[in-house]
Parts: sequence; structure tokens; C-alpha cells
Amino acid sequence: MGTLPPVSQGAPLEDIDTPALIVELEAFERNLERLQSAMRGSGARVRPHAKSHKCVEIARRQIKAGAVGICCQKVSEAEAFVDGGIRDVLITNEIVGPAKVRRLAQLAQRARVGVCVDDARNVTELSRAANAAGVVLDVLVEINVGGNRCGVAPGDDAVQLALAVKNAPFLRFGGLHAYHGSAQHLRGMGERRAASQAAAAHARATRDALARYDIACETITGGGTGTCFFDCGSRVYNEVQPGSYIFMDADYLRNEWQHLPMFEPSLYVLTSVMSTCTPGRVVVDAGLKALSVDSGMPIVRGSAGHVYSNPSDEHGIITPGPDVPPPGLRDKLKLLPGHCDPTVNLYDHIVAVRAGRAEAVWPIAARGAVW
Amino acid sequence: MGTLPPVSQGAPLEDIDTPALIVELEAFERNLERLQSAMRGSGARVRPHAKSHKCVEIARRQIKAGAVGICCQKVSEAEAFVDGGIRDVLITNEIVGPAKVRRLAQLAQRARVGVCVDDARNVTELSRAANAAGVVLDVLVEINVGGNRCGVAPGDDAVQLALAVKNAPFLRFGGLHAYHGSAQHLRGMGERRAASQAAAAHARATRDALARYDIACETITGGGTGTCFFDCGSRVYNEVQPGSYIFMDADYLRNEWQHLPMFEPSLYVLTSVMSTCTPGRVVVDAGLKALSVDSGMPIVRGSAGHVYSNPSDEHGIITPGPDVPPPGLRDKLKLLPGHCDPTVNLYDHIVAVRAGRAEAVWPIAARGAVW
Repeated sequence: MGTLPPVSQGAPLEDIDTPALIVELEAFERNLERLQSAMRGSGARVRPHAKSHKCVEIARRQIKAGAVGICCQKVSEAEAFVDGGIRDVLITNEIVGPAKVRRLAQLAQRARVGVCVDDARNVTELSRAANAAGVVLDVLVEINVGGNRCGVAPGDDAVQLALAVKNAPFLRFGGLHAYHGSAQHLRGMGERRAASQAAAAHARATRDALARYDIACETITGGGTGTCFFDCGSRVYNEVQPGSYIFMDADYLRNEWQHLPMFEPSLYVLTSVMSTCTPGRVVVDAGLKALSVDSGMPIVRGSAGHVYSNPSDEHGIITPGPDVPPPGLRDKLKLLPGHCDPTVNLYDHIVAVRAGRAEAVWPIAARGAVW
Repeated sequence: MGTLPPVSQGAPLEDIDTPALIVELEAFERNLERLQSAMRGSGARVRPHAKSHKCVEIARRQIKAGAVGICCQKVSEAEAFVDGGIRDVLITNEIVGPAKVRRLAQLAQRARVGVCVDDARNVTELSRAANAAGVVLDVLVEINVGGNRCGVAPGDDAVQLALAVKNAPFLRFGGLHAYHGSAQHLRGMGERRAASQAAAAHARATRDALARYDIACETITGGGTGTCFFDCGSRVYNEVQPGSYIFMDADYLRNEWQHLPMFEPSLYVLTSVMSTCTPGRVVVDAGLKALSVDSGMPIVRGSAGHVYSNPSDEHGIITPGPDVPPPGLRDKLKLLPGHCDPTVNLYDHIVAVRAGRAEAVWPIAARGAVW
């Protein structure tokens, strides 16, 4: 099962069959380096989130650039990376239920594996599974720092849960997961900074409350692409987990960035014009199965002002920009996806392009790894 | 590559790891039969669209129920079905560019393959590719009957293109593709009927114009799940291509159906509650990578009134219904997707459930087959 690569290594861009997912290595490599250099001296380790790329080769390059390991969201995702040779994975999510917990513990036989908890019942099942697998699991307590998704309340609730972890055989308390998901896409710098400061205050208070029990937090992690620079400034977080920074997407570009290290778009869906019957619009071969529109339409790369709209399952409409000729039949366009993570998850391969050639075709090993 | 099946054959529903795609066979089989029995005596053949399910086993069952073959949208999709033993595939789409056209012609060495055109340049490249592969391709002229996507204008433009097909060696003119995509989801019965009648009028006029050149239309095809009963009533269409009818989805259920044979929801994403920290909501493990929200949020199955919202990549929020206890940690819920096609395309397997047990696990062989 799985689809064939859309091009052979070394082929020119024109030969890539469409729709195809491509990453432009020049921008990608600048993004890699920009994050690492911005974080040097901040006191925070970089552990990029692999849910954005699901690609072992990209994880390797992130670690080579200075990352301490990667984050994943799912057991099956983590398995794909450990299978690919990644030795340090933090699952920034709760793993619940017997089948998943058993596989998680078995994975810790082959790599350093951490996981988050927000429920004492889950602490119990994790400890039992770790015992059965003969491992000790690193467990972080997730606190709700404003994202209102998972996580116990900061302060007393978190302390109680941390004590449960401390007291569970076969688990090691690893610190706090204090990630504020919804803050990442607040548009204004001021809003994101304020959300980050509020999150850091919750993390700090919880850290201090734990200290009164002589419980140290080895790791306090948060910081996505939208807030990692603010989070580091708090000196509370000592690990950040940005994912989208390597690719960027149309939605992240709508954020205000000002003086922050600016990441560049590097990820595109390459699409072809397949129908030009009606004046004023052409049809391209990338629709809902080739890009995710949950965060808005893709942006057509280039300055011609072409606009993508009306995605159906296998088609999209391009309205040509004013004062430019419309794209012709078989012309290829680069679409910057609205949201990189679920778009990457549609593909089995990503074509790594440099100077207009397919330098490599990387498997997206964790594509579809949803459990 | 590809993910593991989420359950073993014969296991109870509770053992299916989540998120997972399931089809309830009782409803699925009633939908299969309802379409076939409604079409009997209508004069129209049934050729269901396989873009909705991408699953060879489902195509086999459709053909066993009386379908004459299947429709696909992409060459790679058609390849997956021919590899699985399906012998009659109509690609209801334009296939443009040398790589795709070559593979299309090669596929016709192994099965009966039809394709649509809306451009004379494409006719030329198809004919050359058919020659190179030693095959004759069935070619339908796509006309724009109101969907404003692909397709030449009905009438003279269509006649000119049909003549080009007739005159091209290695191509056989197969008729008209007169599918009105955007009509399928018009909510009111009256609106859908009117759109269908307008489409049929375009198809009829084009058929009659072709007859003046002594060109017969072996096939005039259209008719998705939303309009196929109206389209048949016109006596112009002699083939219909509904896809979603086997599964239904939340968006199709918002259509008005009245006396029409009512298809039932059969497709769900099974999800588990993974976090219950905050009163008034719980978190489930199915987000944007487990279901497509392009046509709105999934509906939580059952009458408890639970509401799904706030999908992020790997999470969703359930607000419990009034007057019922909230779902508990590890509880499983069935989510009826907003849009079945792009949701199915996220999974490698579909678990076929009967009476609460996994009767079979079917590979979704054409998952990700976007080119």
C-alpha cells in the first residue's frame, strides 16, 4: 500500500507529476538554522514537533542542526520515528487505553520515550504497562495554560497529579507540559506575548508549588512556532517544541512577526492547470484531497495575483490576477497551503527541491499515523 | 509504508483502536440495494463513483449489486482498482500531461478505460498515447452543465470537440459527461430538481446537435447522490455516478430528501475520550488528521445531544448534551463526518462492522492516489 513517488531523484521541477508536495530546501535550511541560532543562549533546548512533517529525514536534519530530539502526538507516529532511528521522542499528548499504552511502553524498550498525563487513572495504566514492558517511562504533567484543550489546572491539581506520578513505580516525573495551542495563531505580537506571559505565569506557579514538595521539574516545555520566542523570554520554559517553522503556511504568515526571526514559506503543493474552457478562470488538479483548507485557502506563489478558490475533492479554481495572462493548460503553479500539518498528512512523499531539481524524495513515514 | 489495521477481524467494536474509520454493514448494504432498486426500470445504468470510497472491496460489492463498472477521478486511483480486478473504469475527469496520459493508455491494456476531455490539445495527446500503447480509448466530451468547473460549453463547442475525438485515430467517441457537481448539495428538492432539469436540457441539446452530424452518444452520464433520481427522470442521462450514497455524510443529510429513496449514514470515525479535566467538555482523539471539516463539523451519533467542535490537528472538543452525563475517559463515540470523500482519503483501512463486531478490515487501496 502507499502511492508511488511523484518524480525520480535528480529530475527537474517540470517533471514532477501533480499534485505533489514539495519543500524548497534553500528556505527550509534557512528556517532550520534561524530557529537554532535564535534559541542559542536562551537557556531553552529545541525539540521540534514532528507532527508537522511526519518525516524521518526531516527529524534527522533537525537533530543534526542542534535539536535534542523530537515531539510526537501519537504512539503510531512515535513508532515510525523510532523505526527510522530517532532515539529521543516526547509524546506531547495523553496516551489512553490498553492497546496504546502497551505499545507506548514497548516503544520505550527501543528509545527514550516521554509522555504527558492529565488524569490519575492514566498514571495507573501507564505504570502497569511500563512494568509489563520492563521499562521506566518519563511522564510530564500537562497543565492547561489557557489553550483549554487537555491538561489539569495549574497549581494544586498539577501538584497532586505530579505526586501520583512520583509515587507510581515504573514512572519518572519529567516535568511540565505547558503548551498553549490556541495562542500560536493570535495575530498580533502583543496578544501572543500576553498569552505567552499568562501561560508562563501558570507554569512558574506550578513549578514553585512543586518545589515546596521538593519536586523538581527537569523539563518545562511549550512554545510552538507562534510563541516560542516569547516563551523562552520568560526563563520558565527550558524546552520549546515548534513544528511549523520549517515549512510555514498561509495561516502562520497572517501572524504579525515584526523583529522576530522570520521563517519563510518552504512547503508547497505543486499543481497543474487541467482545464481552461471558460474565460476568467482555469481549473487546477489540487482539491480537498491534495491540501487541507481548515485554515483557509492556499495562496498561489508568485506576484501575479492569481487566487485559488472553490476547492472540490479533486479540483480547485484559479482566478487569474489582473493585468497578467491567465495560466495555460499544463502550466504548473505552487500553492502555499493554508495549514501545513494536515496537508502533509495527505502525502506519502515530499519532494525536496533545490535550484529547480528534485534533490531527493523523502518518505513521509508517519503519514496517516493517527493512533 | 502504510499504517497497521486498527483491529483484527472478528474483534468487538470496543477493541478497535481509535481514531478509526468504520462502516456499518447493515446500513451500507441497504444503501447499495436502495440505489439499485430505485434505478431498475429507469433506463439508466449505475456506475458508482469510487472516489468516495477508494476501496476495491466496495467496488466489487457495487458491481455484484448491479453496477456496470465504476468511475474514478485520477489515473492513479483507476490503477488501484484495475490492480484489484475491476475491469471497467470511467475516469470522469480530464487527464492532462505526458506522464498521466501515458499511464492512462497503459492502463487500457488491462481494462476497459474511458476518460473525459474538454480541450482539443488533450484529444491529440490522448490519441498519441493510445497509439503508443496499442489501445483504443473511450473518450467522452465533458460539457459544463452549470457546475462551472471543467467542461466545454454545451452545443457547438461540444460538437466541435466530439468531431475532433471522432477524427482522432485510436480514440472512440463514447458520449457526454454532463455532471453538475455543485447541484448535488443544493438543499431544497426544488432547487436540485431545477438544476438537474437545466443540466439535462444542455445535455439533450448537445445530444441532438451531435445527431445532426450522425454522431450518437452511447453514454450520457451525470447524477451524483444529490441529483441522480432527478437526472434519470429526464430520460436524457443513461448512466449515473453517485458516490456518497453508500456512506452519506453530515452535509448530504442536510439536503431535503422527502419521498426519495433515503440513504442512511453508514460511515463513522470512531473516536475515544482522552481527557476529562474540565467540567462541561471532554477531549476526543480525532481532529483534522482524522476527519475533514471542509463541509462542517462531524455529528456525534446518538441522541444524547453531544456536540463536536474546535478541531485541532489531533484533538476535538465534545460539549456534552443537556440532561445527560458527559462521556467518560476512554468512552468511544461515533462521529458522522461532514464530508465522506476527503475523510476516507485519510485512512488506509476501513473496518466493516456488523452487529458490533469487525466482520472485515478492508484496505483503502486508492487512499492518497491524487494524480
